[in-house]
Amino acid sequence: MKAFVMKEIGKVGFVEKPVPQPGPNDAIVRTTRALICTSDSHTVDGGIGPREDLTLGHEAVGVVHATGSEVKAFKPGDRVVVGAITPDWGSPAAQDGYSSQSGGPLGGWKFSNTKDGVFAEYFHVNDADANMARIPDTVPDEMAVYCCDMLSTGFMGAEKGNIPIGGTVAVIAQGPVGLMSTAGAKLRGAGLIIGVESVPRRKELARSYGADEIVDFTTEDVVERVLELTGGEGVDTAIEALGADATFQTAVKVTKPGGTVSNTGYFGEGEFVRIPRVEWGVGMADKTIATGLCPGGRLRMERLLRILETKRVDPTLMTTHTFGFDEMEQAFEVSDKKLDEVVKPLIVFAA
Amino acid sequence: MKAFVMKEIGKVGFVEKPVPQPGPNDAIVRTTRALICTSDSHTVDGGIGPREDLTLGHEAVGVVHATGSEVKAFKPGDRVVVGAITPDWGSPAAQDGYSSQSGGPLGGWKFSNTKDGVFAEYFHVNDADANMARIPDTVPDEMAVYCCDMLSTGFMGAEKGNIPIGGTVAVIAQGPVGLMSTAGAKLRGAGLIIGVESVPRRKELARSYGADEIVDFTTEDVVERVLELTGGEGVDTAIEALGADATFQTAVKVTKPGGTVSNTGYFGEGEFVRIPRVEWGVGMADKTIATGLCPGGRLRMERLLRILETKRVDPTLMTTHTFGFDEMEQAFEVSDKKLDEVVKPLIVFAA
Amino acid sequence: MKAFVMKEIGKVGFVEKPVPQPGPNDAIVRTTRALICTSDSHTVDGGIGPREDLTLGHEAVGVVHATGSEVKAFKPGDRVVVGAITPDWGSPAAQDGYSSQSGGPLGGWKFSNTKDGVFAEYFHVNDADANMARIPDTVPDEMAVYCCDMLSTGFMGAEKGNIPIGGTVAVIAQGPVGLMSTAGAKLRGAGLIIGVESVPRRKELARSYGADEIVDFTTEDVVERVLELTGGEGVDTAIEALGADATFQTAVKVTKPGGTVSNTGYFGEGEFVRIPRVEWGVGMADKTIATGLCPGGRLRMERLLRILETKRVDPTLMTTHTFGFDEMEQAFEVSDKKLDEVVKPLIVFAA
Amino acid sequence: MKAFVMKEIGKVGFVEKPVPQPGPNDAIVRTTRALICTSDSHTVDGGIGPREDLTLGHEAVGVVHATGSEVKAFKPGDRVVVGAITPDWGSPAAQDGYSSQSGGPLGGWKFSNTKDGVFAEYFHVNDADANMARIPDTVPDEMAVYCCDMLSTGFMGAEKGNIPIGGTVAVIAQGPVGLMSTAGAKLRGAGLIIGVESVPRRKELARSYGADEIVDFTTEDVVERVLELTGGEGVDTAIEALGADATFQTAVKVTKPGGTVSNTGYFGEGEFVRIPRVEWGVGMADKTIATGLCPGGRLRMERLLRILETKRVDPTLMTTHTFGFDEMEQAFEVSDKKLDEVVKPLIVFAA
Repeated sequence: MKAFVMKEIGKVGFVEKPVPQPGPNDAIVRTTRALICTSDSHTVDGGIGPREDLTLGHEAVGVVHATGSEVKAFKPGDRVVVGAITPDWGSPAAQDGYSSQSGGPLGGWKFSNTKDGVFAEYFHVNDADANMARIPDTVPDEMAVYCCDMLSTGFMGAEKGNIPIGGTVAVIAQGPVGLMSTAGAKLRGAGLIIGVESVPRRKELARSYGADEIVDFTTEDVVERVLELTGGEGVDTAIEALGADATFQTAVKVTKPGGTVSNTGYFGEGEFVRIPRVEWGVGMADKTIATGLCPGGRLRMERLLRILETKRVDPTLMTTHTFGFDEMEQAFEVSDKKLDEVVKPLIVFAA
Repeated sequence: MKAFVMKEIGKVGFVEKPVPQPGPNDAIVRTTRALICTSDSHTVDGGIGPREDLTLGHEAVGVVHATGSEVKAFKPGDRVVVGAITPDWGSPAAQDGYSSQSGGPLGGWKFSNTKDGVFAEYFHVNDADANMARIPDTVPDEMAVYCCDMLSTGFMGAEKGNIPIGGTVAVIAQGPVGLMSTAGAKLRGAGLIIGVESVPRRKELARSYGADEIVDFTTEDVVERVLELTGGEGVDTAIEALGADATFQTAVKVTKPGGTVSNTGYFGEGEFVRIPRVEWGVGMADKTIATGLCPGGRLRMERLLRILETKRVDPTLMTTHTFGFDEMEQAFEVSDKKLDEVVKPLIVFAA
Repeated sequence: MKAFVMKEIGKVGFVEKPVPQPGPNDAIVRTTRALICTSDSHTVDGGIGPREDLTLGHEAVGVVHATGSEVKAFKPGDRVVVGAITPDWGSPAAQDGYSSQSGGPLGGWKFSNTKDGVFAEYFHVNDADANMARIPDTVPDEMAVYCCDMLSTGFMGAEKGNIPIGGTVAVIAQGPVGLMSTAGAKLRGAGLIIGVESVPRRKELARSYGADEIVDFTTEDVVERVLELTGGEGVDTAIEALGADATFQTAVKVTKPGGTVSNTGYFGEGEFVRIPRVEWGVGMADKTIATGLCPGGRLRMERLLRILETKRVDPTLMTTHTFGFDEMEQAFEVSDKKLDEVVKPLIVFAA
Repeated sequence: MKAFVMKEIGKVGFVEKPVPQPGPNDAIVRTTRALICTSDSHTVDGGIGPREDLTLGHEAVGVVHATGSEVKAFKPGDRVVVGAITPDWGSPAAQDGYSSQSGGPLGGWKFSNTKDGVFAEYFHVNDADANMARIPDTVPDEMAVYCCDMLSTGFMGAEKGNIPIGGTVAVIAQGPVGLMSTAGAKLRGAGLIIGVESVPRRKELARSYGADEIVDFTTEDVVERVLELTGGEGVDTAIEALGADATFQTAVKVTKPGGTVSNTGYFGEGEFVRIPRVEWGVGMADKTIATGLCPGGRLRMERLLRILETKRVDPTLMTTHTFGFDEMEQAFEVSDKKLDEVVKPLIVFAA
């Protein structure tokens, strides 16, 4: 089969690989739709170290092709979504409620990290009964594929932010995850959602997904403006959706005492991420810093699919580009270089 | 001043009373808008025992008329909403997070219970800095008045129900509190909301506030239908918004293992409320039963007002009737006897 | 191999069975120590319906005899404890945090329910990596065996009771689970623990495990006495450790507004379990009713073993009787008829 | 009356002041016992800016001398403890569950900050009904005085650390707050408590309060040793009880994915507190950073007093020195310069 891989640090391309085989608890899925993620670029840039011919991608849906002997809930032909994170559900970390950390820090992240990813005609799913979910008839593949990572990670930012009904929320950066954190904040009942962004298309999308106010960091002081919008108090919840030292500091500063900084961003640089001491209340202001990695699993996927089924959120507004699988190189470049105001590029596999 | 009172059990009418005076921490509010609640009928029927010339009502907004010497956050002329429940915030129960229980079970409920209520030209607010909130200019009085009880109690049903994003919820009974629980379930991100109701006007309102499915208990078996709509599993959260033994049993039965029954209803009858033993998992199915009484306080009111300001919910759809304060007797009868498919009757006070 | 079984309702005895074989994810354990539980008697009495030659027992430790091809964390010769509840960790219920409900209400309870139990020379463990834990050298088998159910269920009562440091707790009934709830309440930092019990040996044990006060229901009014001991307020947490309508009502009555009734008991009788309406605050006193089924799993077992390793609790004080496996019939009778002030009978298997 | 004050930055001494008068909600307490805190030294060193003749001290007990007109729960002659933090309980922050942040960041901290402290013959208590607690007869003043700050702050470190029964905990630094975090970890049911300390007297005290292992940072690598003691995993909870950038980093490093860093320390220096990026799981390892300021209030004090009444913890082991109030200058020097292996110096006021 054809697979789109990281050949070495900085280099991508197609290679031919055998169709994977399932172990007793596994499934093999024939890919129908996939999305490219900025973290695919991090990987290719060496973010997780050198890899040779590692298949890229972690956001995909498809049709079950084969199942192992112990798989009970699925059979070939089922249309399924697979979370970007595919935990070992029996591991102590998962039993503790932290499935994404199964087998070590971020250990649930296997696709395009510790095993081949989903940018291939077929891909392998570990613990298939636990990590796949059937897609309802009313939800098309190109919509369902947003459950894998974008909805799951973005909503997590809101969920871990401990938003009260009527609470105030700032979402810092309105990339695809930030946009879904904005939608997530609305889903949790925030009374005021402030999006921080400068790109026009993303500002507009932020409004569509629930932002009541937009603060443009290129023309305004974000901390000052958020305090102004909240009567000088700061927000109940600040969601950091970029993963940079500077925006993290902003998040701490705009959060009120007793509030929560909820991080969804991947921090890729530097020895430290720095907390501004005084605005953190010298360590005593009841400001909580929460973090996490995209929740996976059948139950999570089923719940996200339900959000699509009942039309609470339409993530396909973020699909700015569509490519065939054979156009992966071009698609990857658009995503990697953020060409043409791209938000999310959708990949369509041949039927 | 004119006050609309319970003269004795079963009898209401107007009496003349002096305008109340504030103690050091109190305020006096001149009433502008009020709502009648079915619990006013319970009170008149003797639900809390005999009372003589007790002013009725606990849902009202108005303008600050006078403040005590220790009141700092408000001054005469401020347009304010006052929660139906006005706790003693320094009490141990409030310090424990249960302000509605300050001073004993349901002790935060003072209006028309342990002191005069709000159906009068002026009413008294204890601990005014803590129990009032300023109404934003963009929110009219006839909308803000829904914060006192309807939004606060209804949303509480959703909040205590521990609804996950994408979770399934059944809201049993779609009276005004149930309708606001439906809206609250939507605000918390439920993926499927099932309203149980038979009255056409209420069914329609339930749809408007977020119900995806309506189950009519006069034509369908509620337990069977809810299980069917949830693939045989039951809901994550069942909100009991009536307060009857039969609907409580239904709530337990439609809740899945690990789910929550969240009660907002006032149980007015019988020695016992009965849990169906087997469907409760013989006490071992991780089904939690949560209860509470309308949260009050400045912060709660501010958050609910924000929900109105950013137009997340429009409670005025429930205002089916409007009366002047001098028409209180007629208004009370409409509410008491549920005439004319009434949902909420609004009372307008002379300027 | 020899197995001690329920032959039919009301009848127990030995039968010969083949040593079980492991599937890919399973293990077979050679039994070394076991404990008899009162729920074994419920089973024999028909509590879960008719069964034929079902091996009894769910509390046992032993040595790994064989493992399936996919088992990675254990190997033959490992000394292990296996939780009484052995969930399917990949199931949606487990992913939701309710592993004991995997596969349906109480579905994690497999031993001596949906498959053979542990009163045999060898027993089968599903999902072995997830459901077994290695026993530290310093913890003897006859101590470790208390982790399976007694510590796990008893402590759960305290954990779900939401006990604050310095809070007040009543533990109703001081059988083995109640005693471990008493120990659990102490482990959570309760400031006052009230044990309700009448049997002298159990009263003494309750004191040993942390009860500050004992209320004897045969000579005192429990509700009155608990209110007296808490200045008229009631307790923060009442743990129901019997599973009877009457004690459940007591639990609701002695709990203060805002407090929690936490149930560990199996309710075996009647169509309903009844909540006393008025003392429940007519459904509005913020009294939560929490329930659950013994948590299982490797992580849980490891944490309980640590409690034994660092000598926080010594459950072997409850071992009032010891029998060889060949004396099971006599042992079962002692447990079933509660002869000789039995608390827990330990079963020793031949080396 | 005599008051021991900060005359200016760097200078302390006695001055004569009038006995304070109560407002309607206040009380005046005649001091009987007090404790000196290292934060008194921070204050004198200029930590909260310049002050002139500010009475020092925030840990004291005494006898009610006078009460305001609205005070209902206390009367002159009552023996009381007053929390170091005396919140405005009606403030929005307190209504939100963050009473220590009432009126702004750390706003509940009034003694020796925004008003005179307790090192005087009499001191003033705002919102007296809410901020004082009666001391039981069986608890002597010199024990009760530990509730004000040491027990409340130390235990908070454990409570916010989200410790599971049988969990693993590291407490970094065993000063008086760290020692009470150690005791608090034991009270929450930790299965393994690791104390980090080098001073012999404090190591011994740590053992007395529940530390199972002591790591001496002067002779061992703390991160390495804690990982070793936890099988390479890290702890469920790391309590930072010093307030320094270096120990904070250690806390993040020794915490396992899914674990909590709970801070009790006051961070007095530097523009930033730095999170080690990689060990924090690049912002995705579900490591939560929780902070807070000593909880105050009547309920908190009552619960802490109960812990003393039932002898769960004996804080007087930390009283290494005793002085009369007239010896305050000497006492302050001992505390300030950490002379003579001081842990806590007790101040006795003339009867």
